[in-house]
Amino acid sequence: MNHILYVKNAAQVVTMKGSKEPRAGQSMKDLGLIEHGSVVVKDGIIAFVGTDQEAMDYLKNDKKEDIKTIDASGKLVTPGLIDPHTHLVYAGSRENELEMRLKGATYIEIHKQGGGILSTMAETRKASEETLFDQSAERLDKFIKHGVTTVEAKSGYGLNVKDELKQLHVAKQLNERHPVDVVSTFMGAHAVPVEFKEDPEGYIDLLIKELLPRVAKDKLAEFCDVFCEDGVFTLEQSERILNAGIEYGLKPKIHADEIEAFGGAELAAKLEAVSADHLLKASDQGIQDMANKKVIATLLPGTAFFLMTTPARARRMIDSGMAVALATDCNPGSSPTESLLLVMNLACLTMGMTPEEVITACTINAAHAIDKADTIGSLEVGKQADLVLFDAKNYQILQYNYGVNLVQTVIKKGQVLVQEGRMLDNYQSIH
Amino acid sequence: MNHILYVKNAAQVVTMKGSKEPRAGQSMKDLGLIEHGSVVVKDGIIAFVGTDQEAMDYLKNDKKEDIKTIDASGKLVTPGLIDPHTHLVYAGSRENELEMRLKGATYIEIHKQGGGILSTMAETRKASEETLFDQSAERLDKFIKHGVTTVEAKSGYGLNVKDELKQLHVAKQLNERHPVDVVSTFMGAHAVPVEFKEDPEGYIDLLIKELLPRVAKDKLAEFCDVFCEDGVFTLEQSERILNAGIEYGLKPKIHADEIEAFGGAELAAKLEAVSADHLLKASDQGIQDMANKKVIATLLPGTAFFLMTTPARARRMIDSGMAVALATDCNPGSSPTESLLLVMNLACLTMGMTPEEVITACTINAAHAIDKADTIGSLEVGKQADLVLFDAKNYQILQYNYGVNLVQTVIKKGQVLVQEGRMLDNYQSIH
Ligand SMILES: [Zn+2]
Ligand SMILES: [Zn+2]
Repeated sequence: MNHILYVKNAAQVVTMKGSKEPRAGQSMKDLGLIEHGSVVVKDGIIAFVGTDQEAMDYLKNDKKEDIKTIDASGKLVTPGLIDPHTHLVYAGSRENELEMRLKGATYIEIHKQGGGILSTMAETRKASEETLFDQSAERLDKFIKHGVTTVEAKSGYGLNVKDELKQLHVAKQLNERHPVDVVSTFMGAHAVPVEFKEDPEGYIDLLIKELLPRVAKDKLAEFCDVFCEDGVFTLEQSERILNAGIEYGLKPKIHADEIEAFGGAELAAKLEAVSADHLLKASDQGIQDMANKKVIATLLPGTAFFLMTTPARARRMIDSGMAVALATDCNPGSSPTESLLLVMNLACLTMGMTPEEVITACTINAAHAIDKADTIGSLEVGKQADLVLFDAKNYQILQYNYGVNLVQTVIKKGQVLVQEGRMLDNYQSIH
Repeated sequence: MNHILYVKNAAQVVTMKGSKEPRAGQSMKDLGLIEHGSVVVKDGIIAFVGTDQEAMDYLKNDKKEDIKTIDASGKLVTPGLIDPHTHLVYAGSRENELEMRLKGATYIEIHKQGGGILSTMAETRKASEETLFDQSAERLDKFIKHGVTTVEAKSGYGLNVKDELKQLHVAKQLNERHPVDVVSTFMGAHAVPVEFKEDPEGYIDLLIKELLPRVAKDKLAEFCDVFCEDGVFTLEQSERILNAGIEYGLKPKIHADEIEAFGGAELAAKLEAVSADHLLKASDQGIQDMANKKVIATLLPGTAFFLMTTPARARRMIDSGMAVALATDCNPGSSPTESLLLVMNLACLTMGMTPEEVITACTINAAHAIDKADTIGSLEVGKQADLVLFDAKNYQILQYNYGVNLVQTVIKKGQVLVQEGRMLDNYQSIH
């Protein structure tokens, strides 16, 4: 049995080494690049990273038959990509809304015709755990084919006790049974369901008094998130919900300032949230506050693209010293994609992020945004061996050869899952 | 031996039937859709298209052992996608220019630092036919993995007799040896090379008197194209070159109004060009003239995306009764992509084209834009069996599940080339 995996002589290895803190501002440019680099994996853990010369020296006492070699010459090797903001677990699809929007319908009009979050809520409530698992696992297959080895997944399409717990159970099952790691966020505060239309405080009570204790007791989530926006949850309600989450050990995240400069960024700073997400309309003050309090900005340029609107001010955030992460926002309404690679292209071409910043945002900063930087997000000795080989001679090519999936090989915990862009059969059989 | 291929029971088949003329204006919405549709191929030619019920009836006298069945249930089947505007054959890559542009450099500044078309010209002149063939064949592999079965390819990086002919020879070789069909366009008038900087008329003489006769004699191109723009070729020069092409049997195409409203659209109408391409700044009058003369607008929203500028007015063109086609513009400077799928997403989300219009633009209208609608661009009895199976339950999903390569199977002339998103080995061995 080969218990050693030797990824040999890549054109470039992006290590992202030395990133105990999120990389903020200028430091987002430092990729810890090694030319002619190699990575050695032992029992699923990174054992060595360095030049190929050094690697051969490192391996000189190991038996040849113990070593499985992957020739990475001419290829780019990066840490497995991490998507720190998705609404992965849902049922159904809403492609009809795209045509309505192209004909000029607003999101509100679509909502009135039975579309929007509440239509996905209805589908998700109706679906069995098995159906939800299967549909979400198909999405994870697409994620991994596009180089993503870890995704965050939020609840928030159940919007009652039974179905929020169902969504979180499915996320847990996916984490256990699908090779992609799934990190769970409780987001009962995604919308106020129709049953509580006249009594939003009643719904918040249900979230805080009934759901949060059960989520915490069964360890169904690591984070708590709120859709803080005019007409959804107020600043005061958002703060109350996130503080309740903190009491139960759930770290705060926040959907902030997507539609209006509502004060979500400032609230994120006040609560020292792990991340504030969306931020299309975040104020200058909000950006400065977040920079001071080391809140990570998780930006979702795919959502702006799909909703045909102006993306967040990534340049101002980075230039103000913030750490930026990128995510797909994968969801059936405003961002139905599993391609973090296109999100990277959009970050570059619609938000002006450089190729270096983009890679940092999808590796080590994304790891910090889900508080997993101790095990993933960089190629360093002792970390989990999640890595991607791209058909690219340097890291710039990922943004240059835009729109093309250049993923060649994906390795998760030392196991080859994707080869020549195709999932290997033993992993396809899990669902 | 199975000489019958039976693509069975697709969720939807996009036939595009009945399109002897380009589909203009409103008629771009008609996809000739069949639900629960099947396609039967005999000896590389489409023998039957209809519902699965009808297909079983059609096949009832054929022997089972003659039939290879592909189960398309739950899948979308479309004609093989066609890319009618690329600069496929070139050497080298220019990813460094992206970083320069992100730092604020203009195209002119990049040009002065040795970048731009002329840097690719230098690389292409230096490269052997073999190198050019290999690099271009790799691009065709990416095209076919993204569902494209036919591409147009322009010369214009040689810019002297020897190297223009070399580029056209490579395109011919690719057409013969690579499964993707390559349709060739002579575009010596892509730029004025440095040797003729002080004597552009001398270069035009060389094009008309030396190159065109040889291109025509050796049947190296079907079309002639000109970069008609301020500072490149004037309207008068463009007209002279295209008319000379017509005399030698080359049908006219034109790079028009990309940077300024220069009158290229009006010239395209005057010459009754097969297509006018780019058209970002085409005037209202130019659009009306082109509509009247049935010039196809080949739009390149990927180029606008990559150059971070505003795309063409597709809605106005379609609403004025034009036929629109879409293309990647695949080239190392302004659009280094092989993903017509992303171009489709961009057409929808940045130019407001509907999912129906986008598919029409990449199938039958693209076929007309390269004058091949008699053999490709629709699924009709007697046409070449080029088809794509997408992992999508309806055609809208291609625009909805944006940024993801949903291609499952690609069939070219009745042969399966791509399966589960991976090129089959027998076709990988050709280069
Ligand atoms: Zn979200
Ligand atoms: Zn062009």
